Amino acid sequence: MTDQNLDAFRARCQARVDTTLDELLPPVSVEPARLHEAMRYSALSNGKRLRPLLTYAAGAALGIESDLLDRPACAVELIHAYSLIHDDLPAMDDDDLRRGRPTCHKAYDEATAILAGDALQTLAFQALSEAPGIAAENRVLMVEALARASGARGMVGGQAMDLAAEGKPLDVAMLEHIHIHKTGALIRASVQMGMLAHGSLDPDHSQRLDRYAKCLGLAFQIQDDVLDVEGDTAEIGKTAGRDQALNKATYPSLVGLTEAKEMAANLIAEALSAIEIFPAGADPLRWIAGGLLGRKS
Amino acid sequence: MTDQNLDAFRARCQARVDTTLDELLPPVSVEPARLHEAMRYSALSNGKRLRPLLTYAAGAALGIESDLLDRPACAVELIHAYSLIHDDLPAMDDDDLRRGRPTCHKAYDEATAILAGDALQTLAFQALSEAPGIAAENRVLMVEALARASGARGMVGGQAMDLAAEGKPLDVAMLEHIHIHKTGALIRASVQMGMLAHGSLDPDHSQRLDRYAKCLGLAFQIQDDVLDVEGDTAEIGKTAGRDQALNKATYPSLVGLTEAKEMAANLIAEALSAIEIFPAGADPLRWIAGGLLGRKS
Repeated sequence: MTDQNLDAFRARCQARVDTTLDELLPPVSVEPARLHEAMRYSALSNGKRLRPLLTYAAGAALGIESDLLDRPACAVELIHAYSLIHDDLPAMDDDDLRRGRPTCHKAYDEATAILAGDALQTLAFQALSEAPGIAAENRVLMVEALARASGARGMVGGQAMDLAAEGKPLDVAMLEHIHIHKTGALIRASVQMGMLAHGSLDPDHSQRLDRYAKCLGLAFQIQDDVLDVEGDTAEIGKTAGRDQALNKATYPSLVGLTEAKEMAANLIAEALSAIEIFPAGADPLRWIAGGLLGRKS
Repeated sequence: MTDQNLDAFRARCQARVDTTLDELLPPVSVEPARLHEAMRYSALSNGKRLRPLLTYAAGAALGIESDLLDRPACAVELIHAYSLIHDDLPAMDDDDLRRGRPTCHKAYDEATAILAGDALQTLAFQALSEAPGIAAENRVLMVEALARASGARGMVGGQAMDLAAEGKPLDVAMLEHIHIHKTGALIRASVQMGMLAHGSLDPDHSQRLDRYAKCLGLAFQIQDDVLDVEGDTAEIGKTAGRDQALNKATYPSLVGLTEAKEMAANLIAEALSAIEIFPAGADPLRWIAGGLLGRKS
């Protein structure tokens, strides 16, 4: 049942995200068409949309209408999409495959991929600044939260740490430090976007939702490492076994596969416990957490 | 006299920008140090600071205190600094020299340069979202204006058009279209930041300042092309004659050097005429326009 509920919730959110992104992204009928095509190619590809899903789910837990969440949800997805384009570049992770399709610089060219990433980041902040139905004070807080999560002290900092750590021995604490920045910060921001769409949030509720997001973010990353070992390329949509081939430190390589899976399960339990006081409106947050452990991609 | 006034005004603004950027940029004592170093290397280099200068000058024309303009001025400079890092990358203009020093990817490495550019862009929007003394409504308008000016339909779009135009025949109208996006949009935004620091601006004043900014932006670009022909590498701080070597369309190559200089002079005259109704507070805007024609770098 939970899986079906999650699938239905995901489908509803994905449709909203696709519609809103289509409105936000510049049309290919306008020059420079190649740039606009590359932006759409990357932002509209069939990703899991975990981040916007979390924005809608956090909003649902607080009783916020979905149409107030469309722009904030898409802003986080745009930041995620830009970061994937840049991470895949030859000078960075040098990846040819993403979500089962050629990466942006393979489908287009490197210059276009750099610029498409740049413009998607810009569009994220533009989308927030113009978010309809949200007070200016809250839109400003959203811009600030998203910028903090994605900048040098958040996602970009995490990617820089990750690159610096390549080929060096890492322990679990260092690996966790990298992941908290590289992927965790933006996952927390996704939940924050939902919270900031609320006029005046109870501090206890806000802390609980943030704890949920922190735990979920780390569990997600551990699962990602597990899937790199257990999944196959077709299912996960990127090259399986790549971390191992690159000799990258991962949770399975540091603590073993069984222990890694247990860590993820414990974090999910902690996430669920953080939001147990919320009524049924928080069920989508529960479905997402539950679905994470069963995911194959 | 005008030159001395401009020099003094520039020195005061540069000191404010350097102090504010130093506060905004993450310290090198914090990891990832290399990323933070690269961000500082590019953002704190001794550029001309034309864009923040315009924000302070537009603010001065409207009687706005300089301390309200520090964040908005730095936000524009951060966008400019990020765009230079990315434009210099091997996949883009492949430049080794910028402001008389190795470009960011030469001084560090390509991955660090991509990430430093990304994080500087993010920091620009963070700086605006937190700008002290400015109403939330106006901070949101600043984020929107800066995003529109720098995204796919502004600066990044212009850079994409410029890359697409390489090796193709261009006429003056097409060249102008590229420049209006590539450099003009951000120069207009610089003046807009000053205007948006004002609570409630007279629409006529706003239109006049915008016309000043449009004319100045185009004049600046034409001067840039002229300097590429007339300047020497040491003075302009980047490789002279580079446009010619790349066989790029420029104003001198399309209309001749004399005509190009005349076009720039006419635009400056138009810019000055647009702001003639403003009292002495607008003098810095006049000094900047006057100084543009005499510039050697």
